Amino acid sequence: MKILWKNQIVERDTVKIDIEDRAYQYGDGLYEAIRIYHSEMFMFDEHFDRLARCAKEIRLELPFSRNELKENLEKLIALEKITEGEAYLQVSRGIKSPRNHLIPLPGTVEAILTANVIPIKRDIESQEKGHTACIVEDQRWLHCNIKSLSLLGNVLSLNEAVEQGYDDALLVRNGFFTEASASNLWFVIDGKLYTHEDGNLVLPGITKMKLREIARELDIQIIEKAVPVTKLDQIEECFASNSIHEVTPIVSINEIPVKDGKRGPITKLLLEKYIEATI
Amino acid sequence: MKILWKNQIVERDTVKIDIEDRAYQYGDGLYEAIRIYHSEMFMFDEHFDRLARCAKEIRLELPFSRNELKENLEKLIALEKITEGEAYLQVSRGIKSPRNHLIPLPGTVEAILTANVIPIKRDIESQEKGHTACIVEDQRWLHCNIKSLSLLGNVLSLNEAVEQGYDDALLVRNGFFTEASASNLWFVIDGKLYTHEDGNLVLPGITKMKLREIARELDIQIIEKAVPVTKLDQIEECFASNSIHEVTPIVSINEIPVKDGKRGPITKLLLEKYIEATI
Repeated sequence: MKILWKNQIVERDTVKIDIEDRAYQYGDGLYEAIRIYHSEMFMFDEHFDRLARCAKEIRLELPFSRNELKENLEKLIALEKITEGEAYLQVSRGIKSPRNHLIPLPGTVEAILTANVIPIKRDIESQEKGHTACIVEDQRWLHCNIKSLSLLGNVLSLNEAVEQGYDDALLVRNGFFTEASASNLWFVIDGKLYTHEDGNLVLPGITKMKLREIARELDIQIIEKAVPVTKLDQIEECFASNSIHEVTPIVSINEIPVKDGKRGPITKLLLEKYIEATI
Repeated sequence: MKILWKNQIVERDTVKIDIEDRAYQYGDGLYEAIRIYHSEMFMFDEHFDRLARCAKEIRLELPFSRNELKENLEKLIALEKITEGEAYLQVSRGIKSPRNHLIPLPGTVEAILTANVIPIKRDIESQEKGHTACIVEDQRWLHCNIKSLSLLGNVLSLNEAVEQGYDDALLVRNGFFTEASASNLWFVIDGKLYTHEDGNLVLPGITKMKLREIARELDIQIIEKAVPVTKLDQIEECFASNSIHEVTPIVSINEIPVKDGKRGPITKLLLEKYIEATI
């Protein structure tokens, strides 16, 4: 298996991460997960834009240009013969010794890219039957708009749900739904589509961006405003969106079915139109 | 340089971290930094207890016993001839492919220990002259009692202060002081010693534990309760404590001197007694 490593395509097994790599010691880095359809990355530019914005926010200098990254990932996709799949890339702040919390001065550390591509298939069963979920307190940090490698908060949220027998966690902060454990969260209430407004409490999802476009084309009213948990009994549909799993219906919350416990019509329509956009 | 790796002492350069190590991809792991005085680890048992408690909280099975870890670190200290120094250890959840947020089932992943020891000297100048600090919003997650590798929140807090020309950040959540960027925070107000109560908003520091003991012996009243920022003008002394830097006076906050801008008498006394305890 080949991977992309510091702008070069190399055999996976030749890569050696240093023990003082800041991603290893501090979760100090960023990542993106890009869906591959028909051997092409979907919405690469939007992913790159987000990566570049996040890099600026954490003062990390990306060690590649947009074109370099794109070309190298395309080469890797071709070499690994991926038609349907996922490109995962992460950028660590780099190696700095001795270990010290302080962000190293520019020029004293070199950011490190690692990327791999794997085949994946659309999970049609989940997309049709949906996931069960429970409400978990959102215990993550207050920079959820930064797609960072410091992900233990997300990991623990999902685990809390799974340990109780649910598929996913719906995170709630101060009484309002924010996201699912690794995706944006959407609700249909009174025929209108709700999702949390962008800001520091949620990731500005690339799939969210595309769904926003699609909903407008379909004349579905979108209200980007956090939904309070007190509206739980008014929810007609609920779904989660991310680049890898696209649109996943949430069919029950804390064991209470959402409406009739089946994927709703708006969810179905948005998923169909989303898939069309990827063809 | 030798390090401890998976319960074995090996040359640093022979160690190879995998790209799918969960500490690298998720900050999914724990760490401890232990001070070494006279070639011996100070309060090793307390550090181990905290590590074991945190491991339980994040469902990580430690791949070593207390004695194994202690013996190996002692060997490493001897081999590296460290008299005054720091032992840094971290435990990653381990390697799991393909990448998936979900915590792997027990038995399907093996946690990985990495530890190194380095010489350090007491920073007498900082301990006498103190640090300047500014107030930064505490934007970390809500499990600050878990000493995890997902540290980007701490890193960014410190950086925010340093970019503005300060030595450290005093974190404030909902109007109350929580911690400094990587240490517990203490105040003297009206002759009494205040520090944030243990709980999910602060790390239960090992140095905090020892200082609590010392203050009691000295009949200094300790109130473990968060101090509101509104009390800023009543602060007579302020200091930060952690295992590596011991006690660091904070002599100004947002450019306003704390009292006369010099290390206060209670801070000085606590530091002296702390150092005595390490001899």
